[in-house]
Amino acid sequence: MSIYTHLLVGLDLSPEESLQVARKAVELARLHGAKLSLIHVIEPVTFAYAGDIPMDLTETQLALEEQADKRLASFTQQLGYDVSHSKVVIGQTAAELRETAADLGADLIIVGSHGRHGLALLLGSTASDVLHGAKCDVLAIRV
Amino acid sequence: MSIYTHLLVGLDLSPEESLQVARKAVELARLHGAKLSLIHVIEPVTFAYAGDIPMDLTETQLALEEQADKRLASFTQQLGYDVSHSKVVIGQTAAELRETAADLGADLIIVGSHGRHGLALLLGSTASDVLHGAKCDVLAIRV
Repeated sequence: MSIYTHLLVGLDLSPEESLQVARKAVELARLHGAKLSLIHVIEPVTFAYAGDIPMDLTETQLALEEQADKRLASFTQQLGYDVSHSKVVIGQTAAELRETAADLGADLIIVGSHGRHGLALLLGSTASDVLHGAKCDVLAIRV
Repeated sequence: MSIYTHLLVGLDLSPEESLQVARKAVELARLHGAKLSLIHVIEPVTFAYAGDIPMDLTETQLALEEQADKRLASFTQQLGYDVSHSKVVIGQTAAELRETAADLGADLIIVGSHGRHGLALLLGSTASDVLHGAKCDVLAIRV
């Protein structure tokens, strides 16, 4: 019996921490005999702006997307596991993770967590944001 | 290779939801070949009071503890898994979970999560409280 059949991993693509999260996710996928999908969410640059978006910001965002696409592809190749879906999206991280999990039928969302106190607690972290409203289980891997 | 060796499950002892969380935890413990420990935290009645504690509140708390001890013991028997540690403590739920996990050397804390929006998001839920400051991974099981 499979407890989890499809794991969706949210990665921030930071070199060390993302690899640590993804490697543990791969171990878990092997143990559960589960599919593994990866997602990287770029929060829109415009979120930080109240007015019109200058052209160079749009270009910056496009450049970020291209760069992230390449990094996620290279990242995926390092894992030694057959990744089902792998995508870069623009949006609000927690919402995109939950939506993608629902679209893919993933039954476990995996994210890294810093276990920070103080400011991060007030602002909310990705991990605790994902918890709220998720239709499936959520595993926070301590990095 | 074991990914997780000791799972600590925080239970609110609600009849349906706790059983759902505990049963999934047992499945995971089997899969990982891990130890399983259970904890139920009673938040002190005094937390809600600014002044002196009337005697009958202290008695109420003692009665709650006795009742919880019995329920946890009966709960533990239903699981069909050799539970390593099982205890009722008084304190702040997230802090007690983190502390007990550290004491036992547990490498995964498991809690139930309602995935609520709105008020629960503002107030914080047990699951997201546990995330902050935990030294190990945290799995929130959707109930």
